[in-house]
Amino acid sequence: MCVSHGSVHPVEDPPTTDGGINDNNDHQLAGLRMKYIQGMPGTKGGLALHFCQFLFSLASLGVMTTTSDFPSVTAFCYLVAATGLQCLWSISLVILDIYAILVMRSLQNNRIVSMFAVGDGIISTLTFAAACASAGITVLIDNDLGDCSQNHCAQFQTATAMAFISWDTF
Amino acid sequence: MCVSHGSVHPVEDPPTTDGGINDNNDHQLAGLRMKYIQGMPGTKGGLALHFCQFLFSLASLGVMTTTSDFPSVTAFCYLVAATGLQCLWSISLVILDIYAILVMRSLQNNRIVSMFAVGDGIISTLTFAAACASAGITVLIDNDLGDCSQNHCAQFQTATAMAFISWDTF
Repeated sequence: MCVSHGSVHPVEDPPTTDGGINDNNDHQLAGLRMKYIQGMPGTKGGLALHFCQFLFSLASLGVMTTTSDFPSVTAFCYLVAATGLQCLWSISLVILDIYAILVMRSLQNNRIVSMFAVGDGIISTLTFAAACASAGITVLIDNDLGDCSQNHCAQFQTATAMAFISWDTF
Repeated sequence: MCVSHGSVHPVEDPPTTDGGINDNNDHQLAGLRMKYIQGMPGTKGGLALHFCQFLFSLASLGVMTTTSDFPSVTAFCYLVAATGLQCLWSISLVILDIYAILVMRSLQNNRIVSMFAVGDGIISTLTFAAACASAGITVLIDNDLGDCSQNHCAQFQTATAMAFISWDTF
């Protein structure tokens, strides 16, 4: 098992996922516990969040691509591209989280967390913009034009809702 | 002139817009200079930013409301509502900034900055969502349907672009 040991460098030493319970140094323990936040990359909370993101973006992508006429609307193509990108990002993070949990080592150093934060920021903005554009079109077709008989309103609405939920888990 | 004086509470004492130059306490000066960032509420940079926000959101609102058919599309109504709200928010901040500059006192204490940050976050998200939804509709009308002859595409595009620029200045 790969955990941090005796020599005391409380700031630089990478924290472990078990909170360093088998380490008797109080000062180091305090440092590790302060840094350990559920939902961060490399924790079980982070894994659950990224897996939910992946599931919802995959559902949005799947539902939208089952409609035959989505390529005729630019906003729906953009939603497919954004959710596809989000699927790739989320599954990469899921794999990283599983690796970190398996080797009992978290990914909570500043450089990795900053990289994840920037990536999450870009991907979440793209997903939100795509979901808003799709919502605008969906409401136009359904409420303003009342033209659901010729369009797959239910699928469009479901895909948009899934994209919003997926964005919400960022 | 109303500025902070002698008694040394470098964290709690509200900083002045002139950086407390007429105060001889070095410790307090250092504290004030660290907190003074251009673009924050109560500074000239903040005033310029909020005034730009106000101008662009007013332009977006004005251009959109000059089209006769915007009420028939929900996303455009939402854009009008969001930019209207942003106009009110921005002009309130402009008035506050002018007041702070006139009385030579900045608004850089934690509670006010937090309130502005939360308000900015909510308003900017609303504006961004409205701009994305309008962009989706505009692209649908212009590129996908090619129906600009019967619609005010130029106005819709201008209003959407102004809303995006206004969001970008947050």
